[in-house]
Amino acid sequence: MFFSKLFCPTIKENPSEAEVISHKLMLRSGMIRQVASGIYSLLPTGLKTMRKVEQIIRQEMNVAGAQEVSLPAVHPAQLWRESGRWDSIGKELLRFKDRNGRDYCFGPTHEEVITDLIRRGVRSYRDLPRTLYQIQVKFRDEVRPRFGLMRCREFMMKDAYSFDVDDSACEESYEKMYQAYCKIFSRCDLDYRAVDADSGNIGGSRSQEFMVLAKSGEDEIVSCTSCDYSANMEKATIKIKVENGKKGNQERLELKSTPGKKSIEEIAGFLKIPASDLLKTLIYKTERAFIAVLIPGNRDVNETKLTRHLGATHLNLASPSEVQKLSGASPGFLGPINLEIGPQHIERVIIDVHVTNGDSYVTGANLEDTHYMGVVAGKDFLLTDQADIHKASAGDSCSKCGQALRVDRGIEVGHIFKLGTKYSEVMEATFTDSTGKQKLTVMGCYGIGIGRTVAAAIEQNHDEGGIIFPCALCPFEVAIVPIEWENEVLKKEAIQVYENLSKVGYEPLLDDRLETPGSKFKDSDLLGIPIRITIGEKGISRGKIEVKLRWANKGEFIEKQNLLGWVESALQIKKARRNT
Amino acid sequence: MFFSKLFCPTIKENPSEAEVISHKLMLRSGMIRQVASGIYSLLPTGLKTMRKVEQIIRQEMNVAGAQEVSLPAVHPAQLWRESGRWDSIGKELLRFKDRNGRDYCFGPTHEEVITDLIRRGVRSYRDLPRTLYQIQVKFRDEVRPRFGLMRCREFMMKDAYSFDVDDSACEESYEKMYQAYCKIFSRCDLDYRAVDADSGNIGGSRSQEFMVLAKSGEDEIVSCTSCDYSANMEKATIKIKVENGKKGNQERLELKSTPGKKSIEEIAGFLKIPASDLLKTLIYKTERAFIAVLIPGNRDVNETKLTRHLGATHLNLASPSEVQKLSGASPGFLGPINLEIGPQHIERVIIDVHVTNGDSYVTGANLEDTHYMGVVAGKDFLLTDQADIHKASAGDSCSKCGQALRVDRGIEVGHIFKLGTKYSEVMEATFTDSTGKQKLTVMGCYGIGIGRTVAAAIEQNHDEGGIIFPCALCPFEVAIVPIEWENEVLKKEAIQVYENLSKVGYEPLLDDRLETPGSKFKDSDLLGIPIRITIGEKGISRGKIEVKLRWANKGEFIEKQNLLGWVESALQIKKARRNT
Repeated sequence: MFFSKLFCPTIKENPSEAEVISHKLMLRSGMIRQVASGIYSLLPTGLKTMRKVEQIIRQEMNVAGAQEVSLPAVHPAQLWRESGRWDSIGKELLRFKDRNGRDYCFGPTHEEVITDLIRRGVRSYRDLPRTLYQIQVKFRDEVRPRFGLMRCREFMMKDAYSFDVDDSACEESYEKMYQAYCKIFSRCDLDYRAVDADSGNIGGSRSQEFMVLAKSGEDEIVSCTSCDYSANMEKATIKIKVENGKKGNQERLELKSTPGKKSIEEIAGFLKIPASDLLKTLIYKTERAFIAVLIPGNRDVNETKLTRHLGATHLNLASPSEVQKLSGASPGFLGPINLEIGPQHIERVIIDVHVTNGDSYVTGANLEDTHYMGVVAGKDFLLTDQADIHKASAGDSCSKCGQALRVDRGIEVGHIFKLGTKYSEVMEATFTDSTGKQKLTVMGCYGIGIGRTVAAAIEQNHDEGGIIFPCALCPFEVAIVPIEWENEVLKKEAIQVYENLSKVGYEPLLDDRLETPGSKFKDSDLLGIPIRITIGEKGISRGKIEVKLRWANKGEFIEKQNLLGWVESALQIKKARRNT
Repeated sequence: MFFSKLFCPTIKENPSEAEVISHKLMLRSGMIRQVASGIYSLLPTGLKTMRKVEQIIRQEMNVAGAQEVSLPAVHPAQLWRESGRWDSIGKELLRFKDRNGRDYCFGPTHEEVITDLIRRGVRSYRDLPRTLYQIQVKFRDEVRPRFGLMRCREFMMKDAYSFDVDDSACEESYEKMYQAYCKIFSRCDLDYRAVDADSGNIGGSRSQEFMVLAKSGEDEIVSCTSCDYSANMEKATIKIKVENGKKGNQERLELKSTPGKKSIEEIAGFLKIPASDLLKTLIYKTERAFIAVLIPGNRDVNETKLTRHLGATHLNLASPSEVQKLSGASPGFLGPINLEIGPQHIERVIIDVHVTNGDSYVTGANLEDTHYMGVVAGKDFLLTDQADIHKASAGDSCSKCGQALRVDRGIEVGHIFKLGTKYSEVMEATFTDSTGKQKLTVMGCYGIGIGRTVAAAIEQNHDEGGIIFPCALCPFEVAIVPIEWENEVLKKEAIQVYENLSKVGYEPLLDDRLETPGSKFKDSDLLGIPIRITIGEKGISRGKIEVKLRWANKGEFIEKQNLLGWVESALQIKKARRNT
């Protein structure tokens, strides 16, 4: 491709609407353009990169025995009513009516459609197992679309679904997909982790997320520094150890004036005690009731675990005025003593498992500017409703091997689930087994966000000059930059190099624009092209050519006849540079 | 692929919901399944065939210098309001609101979105020309979706858009696309015609349709038996010749009782005159008014031409009760004499160009069971509002060379348009020309229906046994059918053939199911696989192998070692069999 022909409108300044680096760089390098909030057009270089990811996925899916299909974007409501999700999913499901007033939605995921296909197409155990996948457009009407392709509304996804005769066969299909995912992200040359995850509203018994490590990631990943344990923050468990320094069997309950000391830091500093000797009290509101939570001051509440423990769908912190009404004080002075429990008040008090019988704490007194000292667990409040509702922290002990855990940030690019019979049961997807009995198919589902993978690759691989694409994902492998296009010698040389590279199957980008060399170098860096070949008189006159890797500080001159070999080995370099 | 692993649920009986052969065969061969009215899932063999068409299109688009992009499916209403089509397109535009109540539609075509992209990405004449294309899902909420992928609501389309500095540059871009389309449909091995067409609501100054010839086609194609003239029926013109046998300068107007003789056939038979001596009168209703049309009895009205002549958007025949009210008689006895013209009545009377001054006709008398004889054009009714509003017929004379025209049926698979500045003007898509002036970009647009192309290929290539795919489109090139899978010798041989073919890049389908040979042959025929290799003891024992072309009546035995060469030459055979 000649640059003058390429539709790739680059931008010099950072676009003001972009918050994260991948969004900024994809706009600046002309990969994407916004059409509406959370809705983008992919321009040629953006699409080329997406297609490279798609092609890797397609190859690994096929190797794993999955078959490609293409399901529609528009789904009849009836299928979603069968699964119950027409009502249980909120406004992120984009619903509409056709010209005859019938209900439809824009599919955000395809469990319903594929289960319907399978229940009509699979009769016998001989037709199983089947794993079907598609690479297809989806829509989720996000409350707050942002970060470019990272959290958009219309997005391209690879979703696969497995159907098996029983649990252990499903486990095999799941394992095949797990292995395929590892190969896919390795081939994309991404630094990633597979972590245990919560199943959320998709449902099912087991799930893992594939996380690309990046400082800017929205998710936290907990992993062991010693063994292979790794989970996302929502799901992570730790080995519980005693953290409270004071056993308080002899302590006396005592009121203490703490004017304006609302936060854990303020009260710990004021009383000169560690945060673990304080007990935080928080009031939450679910769709059904208010509940209170007690957790040591050095710990944070894991709201996903709490929601699951409550069996709730929605969970939010109560507002200051609700807290005032329920406790008589503002949120900074909440405590377990004299907290009214019951209908119309707080339904239940859930206490984190770090709190053990006899521990002595400082807590709020449900009185403005006042705390209680010497509040003893099991004496001053009951430990009847305890649960693991804390977040893991770096340095906590691994629940598997006891060694130290670390916490990293990551971007979720894939998610695999063992669904079991959640969908096949409600939608009656059955088959006849070898003894003639009707049985439910056992399902798994497996997703990869294509645009997110590209965005994550950029979050992980960039510098101040622009993108540094892993060789597997770059839109062009080589940039050929003649210092001056109107110099016939350089032009001829550049075209010769272009033809030589094209002939052996590379996709070079020849910068034939009438720009300054500096401006051409900048664009080649911005686009993240792994190899830059500069055609200048200095080299050509000596039979040499200047080559530079995108991630190297400077270029080098090599003999012209060695160029192809040099390019070939350069493109095999992996793990060029990271921003994790 | 082994057949036992393939998700391809074939059906023995003809599905009752399918009216046309491609719909029946795509359902029966397990290529597609309906999800809702006009909405389909593509199963593995269906998708494979679609992908073959897509790949041919992609290659020819790239060769023609077009660049692939991917525009969103969901469009903000604002862009469609800018072009005016938010209001001018009817219910086929699927409109909906997002969670914030903002208006969107599911894109049925992408002129608005691409024009917006170009006006933001193209500044200077140096950035032009650009031709961008995408292969992407679209939705049109058809009144009556039918015929499977032929007229569905959600469909896959290749749409391309060209942007040029002026008309003659646009003409060049259009010509490149025209040539690319010819290559695409030739490579798909389809018998097609490129015909002049009406631009419809897309707009623009010139357009051509690509029609696949098939008896079952919904469209009529008029082409010259001698020169290269060819147009669709809506657009076709003919050389006008005198057809009315009676010059009536001496005739006297005379009432004739014609009880119950309503149709042209009835009255011509009753009076023993040719249909061309009768004059048909029809009353139409547009969105603004009633109009009458006079046309010789041997001719049919071309409603597209009439609509365009009137500058109307909608056109329908008036109902019998409206005709009664306007003329005083029922539709069979309408005529030009005593027809009240004016507001509240009939606005104007349009007369086909076949009617010339002095011709004498029989017409209805606007009295029940009565006709007028000796109605003379120019004397008894005026010839002030004449237009070409007739349909062409087989045997009419070519407007270009005068030779006989023929009429065939066809399926529209592609459509190309010179749009001019229709969209760039209203959406202000401008560029700076070499003298620094702001100018409007000149546009073209170019579509191919992918699913329609596959359906049309089947309409054109099938027999009572199933599909006969052109080699370029088949989901698998070779079916390998061992007579008995549980016979170890045959199984080993079959796998050997499978591996040999796979090694050199073919995609064979090995039928390893425990079915009878007859049932395996039937499925291989149904799926339309061009080559069938039967592995039976009769051949194997003699070192031979049985091969059969899908379109041949019987197979032949060839030497085993000649198999690869035989397959290679067989797959180059084009124009296997037609059903046009």
